Amino acid sequence: MKAYEIMDDLFSLANPLWSDRTCDTLKAGDPNAEVTKVAVSMFATADIIRQASDWGAQLLIVHEPTYYNHWDDHGDDYFETAKRRLIESTGLTIYRFHDHPHCTDPDIITDGEIQYLGLDCTVEKTDVFDLTRLRLTNPMTPRQLAKYIEDTLGIAHVRIAGAADVPCTSLSLMVGTPGGLEQELLRPDTEIILTGEICEWSLGERVRDAAQMGYRKAILVLGHIGSERDGMKYAAHILKERQPHLDVRYFECGEVYTYSDSH
Amino acid sequence: MKAYEIMDDLFSLANPLWSDRTCDTLKAGDPNAEVTKVAVSMFATADIIRQASDWGAQLLIVHEPTYYNHWDDHGDDYFETAKRRLIESTGLTIYRFHDHPHCTDPDIITDGEIQYLGLDCTVEKTDVFDLTRLRLTNPMTPRQLAKYIEDTLGIAHVRIAGAADVPCTSLSLMVGTPGGLEQELLRPDTEIILTGEICEWSLGERVRDAAQMGYRKAILVLGHIGSERDGMKYAAHILKERQPHLDVRYFECGEVYTYSDSH
Repeated sequence: MKAYEIMDDLFSLANPLWSDRTCDTLKAGDPNAEVTKVAVSMFATADIIRQASDWGAQLLIVHEPTYYNHWDDHGDDYFETAKRRLIESTGLTIYRFHDHPHCTDPDIITDGEIQYLGLDCTVEKTDVFDLTRLRLTNPMTPRQLAKYIEDTLGIAHVRIAGAADVPCTSLSLMVGTPGGLEQELLRPDTEIILTGEICEWSLGERVRDAAQMGYRKAILVLGHIGSERDGMKYAAHILKERQPHLDVRYFECGEVYTYSDSH
Repeated sequence: MKAYEIMDDLFSLANPLWSDRTCDTLKAGDPNAEVTKVAVSMFATADIIRQASDWGAQLLIVHEPTYYNHWDDHGDDYFETAKRRLIESTGLTIYRFHDHPHCTDPDIITDGEIQYLGLDCTVEKTDVFDLTRLRLTNPMTPRQLAKYIEDTLGIAHVRIAGAADVPCTSLSLMVGTPGGLEQELLRPDTEIILTGEICEWSLGERVRDAAQMGYRKAILVLGHIGSERDGMKYAAHILKERQPHLDVRYFECGEVYTYSDSH
């Protein structure tokens, strides 16, 4: 099966995208490459490129950019040149799979997160892009939920802004670096927002103030990768089900941050 | 002494600012208020406002916005209304002190950070705004430096992106949420950048890739507050020295994040 055919099949799962232009394009290699092994990851880091190539993948599918900006524009600074040469040396074909999995129904990325989180809850889809609401059967404090997420998804040091120690049942899942967080926070029923990354000095302080003024509001920052990688694990699973003749493997790129107490 | 006279005296320490418009303006209260007690903090959080008021301060000086955006524009949503009413109930006069301390020579905020960090190093000022370079006498790995900073400045979980375990001597201090990080990272001599907050999926991944391709590059993310509050401690000290008749106290607003292992 050719690389572009695999991608077209995955793209066909999506509803019409929000925009005429999509970032889900070929990033390197040959769209006509014959593929038997597909590597899937959150980011095409240098290590993931080497690991996928060592395993024998012809195709690498990633959720996020290869060159550090949304459209993967790249220049000729020495980092980007080194990265391009590394990719070329492997012969890998790389495609991005970002807009389409967010435009499926349900959103593949969010759905994967919910499945792997395994919370005892009800799920409410919304009309708002990248927003799914969950209602916990048993209340948890944001700090308890942070610990649960660390243990379940293997994230180091989930960051908690706002009211950390009040029991809550209402969760708003908004993965990645979404828009609309202020509006969701203002919604009276919103208690905990789970997201990937936020601006500390703006939204972080807003939710801290809200909590200090008596509102039951918190934001849990899982890190960009922590908030979405289980969605890409799930995307790998979906691809495997659709194309059982392909050898599909999820590659873990790890979180972008490490810590003084990590090993 | 009137509130505006205290601020004018502090503002007089700065060189000409980078722009005609400054965010260092009156945010609440009366510029003509007679002041005997001055509270200084990073943010006018709800708790800081109450603590400063309980202590009897007439003036609160903060580095960052009160209403979550650079110009402190505020609307009438229920959070912002509650905050405005809280401030009005205390009668506090609040001024921002952001641009001026960054335009002194040396930058008061950076200088405070360097003093309280207490590293054994040489200091090299630069012509680039918000950039001071340090050269360690004895090499440290980014992970060792993260631990040192956590212990010295009381920051929980400094985030390390890039090469965590290679000994380095060259540090670039760029506090807050600065511009120009990509350029500084590309500079061949740059090893570790210390900063406040970054975009994970863009700059974070760039430095991770650089490290995985063999470059001795890391970014230590101290949190916005962790990277600047010691500068405001130092600003309080400067004010006390200049106006010994005033009662000046630094109030600690704490980091915006807490964690599952914090208490």
